[in-house]
Amino acid sequence: MQAPDELRELFEEYLARLPLHATPEAPGLDDAMRYPVAAGGKRLRPVLCLAVGEAVGVEPRELLPAAAAVELVHTFSLVHDDLPALDDDATRRGSPSAHVRFGEAVAILAGDALLAQAFELTASYESAAPTRELARATLEMIGGQYLDVTRADVDLLDLHRLKSARLYGAAIGCALSLADVDPAEQVSWRDFADAFGRLFQLVDDLHDGDGAVLEHGEEAARELARGQAHQAREALSRVHAETAVVATLLEDLARQAG
Amino acid sequence: MQAPDELRELFEEYLARLPLHATPEAPGLDDAMRYPVAAGGKRLRPVLCLAVGEAVGVEPRELLPAAAAVELVHTFSLVHDDLPALDDDATRRGSPSAHVRFGEAVAILAGDALLAQAFELTASYESAAPTRELARATLEMIGGQYLDVTRADVDLLDLHRLKSARLYGAAIGCALSLADVDPAEQVSWRDFADAFGRLFQLVDDLHDGDGAVLEHGEEAARELARGQAHQAREALSRVHAETAVVATLLEDLARQAG
Repeated sequence: MQAPDELRELFEEYLARLPLHATPEAPGLDDAMRYPVAAGGKRLRPVLCLAVGEAVGVEPRELLPAAAAVELVHTFSLVHDDLPALDDDATRRGSPSAHVRFGEAVAILAGDALLAQAFELTASYESAAPTRELARATLEMIGGQYLDVTRADVDLLDLHRLKSARLYGAAIGCALSLADVDPAEQVSWRDFADAFGRLFQLVDDLHDGDGAVLEHGEEAARELARGQAHQAREALSRVHAETAVVATLLEDLARQAG
Repeated sequence: MQAPDELRELFEEYLARLPLHATPEAPGLDDAMRYPVAAGGKRLRPVLCLAVGEAVGVEPRELLPAAAAVELVHTFSLVHDDLPALDDDATRRGSPSAHVRFGEAVAILAGDALLAQAFELTASYESAAPTRELARATLEMIGGQYLDVTRADVDLLDLHRLKSARLYGAAIGCALSLADVDPAEQVSWRDFADAFGRLFQLVDDLHDGDGAVLEHGEEAARELARGQAHQAREALSRVHAETAVVATLLEDLARQAG
């Protein structure tokens, strides 16, 4: 079993060498695709994908394309969410957003290309299951962003499920489907993914002082986070697999909720 | 063998019943996805997919999800191309463009969702091959749009190959891969797809008086179109299959080039 840092390093090496590539005639588009991907982040989704894979008996190396696909979908969503018509964020992780760096048209196209390339990656498996996992999660994530930008009257935790948890679900779902984990066992894993993803979003809100913190206050947001951490632990305890590394990821996240 | 009109009717019936669907919480997004799809068009890509499928021995009904996936990718590209940051077109097929009807943010998200749903459709096949076909073609199409909006110095026929022909290639490629047509035979089909797609774009330019017409003049554009029609016929003659219906589609298109 590899520790989270080893899995992260494995993933970063893979990602750095992965050709992000639309067509040879348009190297400029490839640059615009690479820019937000290289901007980094904690790579929590791909690391979770690899850790769950190892827990259920899939070699991390075998899961790298699926893990990268999930990360590309996440990156695509950031690029489009930052656009002037959506959240209008000029910076991302301390650097100019893609649309500030490359212009709005190229940012839209680079986001589109990252999404298409994610599915090219899942299609590198013989089974169509990883593509199914990722496509459904992507649709629900986009639905969450729709609810957010249209300021729909929707429960914040439902919004978190759509905007964050579903992609964590896909990260885990890709690993489960490639390991052929039986459906009953998958239920516990998916409960875990759901709680883990919601916990992630609450930690993010606590860090940024928005979302749940604005809606319920900081202490209530911490309480919600503790509740999700508890649910995630409970779901993980029902899983029949070697979950030590996955549990480490969970506890690292839970600690950030204070 | 079904005639083009029968295939088109079969496809329209399927498409009308196909749930375009992100998440139950966001029916408004589903409406914004349906709007540009329902706006119609000649459905030439899906009809070609079904016709080639029948030529190589796949039931048209079996190909409907792949045909719809190609149409959704085409529709996604129209929605994003019409955006103010790209071509800034306020109307499409005589109706308000998606961003005029729903606002820019929702149009961006609806386009994203159509693209994701296209891959959910290709993932309904056990084989990952249709997803591979569609993802690569989509990336090249986006690359073509990038070259167009950045006004790159690129040969117009290369641009046509990227912006139009590659998606026709995917329409045909999905049919070939699901029929397990052998690679040598696929070469002729793909040559046909390439010429057919370029012919389509030249006919489109002749109709709109832009693109090749602006660059080379109308008569030269017609000449180019005749050249592509000739190449398409030649490629089709090398195919070992019952190509009568596909040939009808080609001749209908060639006739429009005058």
